[in-house]
Amino acid sequence: MDVSYINPFLLAAKNVLETMAQTKVRPQKPRLKEEKTTYGEVTGIIGMVSEEMSGSMLVSFSASCILQIVANMLMETKKEKIDEEIVDAVGELTNMICGGAKAELSKKGLKFDLAQPTMVVGKGIEIKAYTNNPTIVIPFDTDSGNFVIEANLGAKRVK
Amino acid sequence: MDVSYINPFLLAAKNVLETMAQTKVRPQKPRLKEEKTTYGEVTGIIGMVSEEMSGSMLVSFSASCILQIVANMLMETKKEKIDEEIVDAVGELTNMICGGAKAELSKKGLKFDLAQPTMVVGKGIEIKAYTNNPTIVIPFDTDSGNFVIEANLGAKRVK
Repeated sequence: MDVSYINPFLLAAKNVLETMAQTKVRPQKPRLKEEKTTYGEVTGIIGMVSEEMSGSMLVSFSASCILQIVANMLMETKKEKIDEEIVDAVGELTNMICGGAKAELSKKGLKFDLAQPTMVVGKGIEIKAYTNNPTIVIPFDTDSGNFVIEANLGAKRVK
Repeated sequence: MDVSYINPFLLAAKNVLETMAQTKVRPQKPRLKEEKTTYGEVTGIIGMVSEEMSGSMLVSFSASCILQIVANMLMETKKEKIDEEIVDAVGELTNMICGGAKAELSKKGLKFDLAQPTMVVGKGIEIKAYTNNPTIVIPFDTDSGNFVIEANLGAKRVK
């Protein structure tokens, strides 16, 4: 993945969570994905597609982190566990973060459509993109716990 | 989901597995998805997207079923467990099955692009589509075990 593609995802995550959920996020150093499993308790996955390019982005939240984010978004007390509302909020946040990155990348001339997010619930699950392009991991800290963005984007996989 | 959309997925799954993997598949009665978790041990997910529509399809294989299918595809002995090659084959089959359905639906005037598949490994995992459209489940039997196709396709979700 072209390194200039990383920042739009990083900034979109920061912007969406700070604006929608009044949650201060601290991006850590991006790196290449080597591990197979996800980090968080709830993960949203979204596909990006155009004629020439394809990719996917996922955002994986620790339980404590997403429970606080959704509490802030809805201005409600923090829930004790992941329920359908939390899982749905992860779908919405996945859409918004990837939508923010898409808007920024479009200014660089990289245009694509977003597919519909899918959410996966559970920790330490193996989730793998069907791509030959490398996946970048961007870890984030918040006062309520961590989350991670993973993104890969590049030329379409030729079998 | 319009019921006329079901058959293209059913026939594409049957066609791909019978052609690519010489595996006789017996489709069971399609039904609405009510449960939250997946059935299989390896699941491929793919997004479908156009200006007006969005959707996703997943195919979830029991371990025994996908190990036999991949053995047939590669003309090799059946492996004992899920490894990276098997997970990748699920991505490829997901692409091919949804590609078959896409070709058929395109003849009915329903055109969309396919995103890049994502594979999830593990059994009984909660996987949820971010959609208000109902999801159809099509179960299949083979001599080596079961697999399931799930699909939802319709107007884009309005928040």
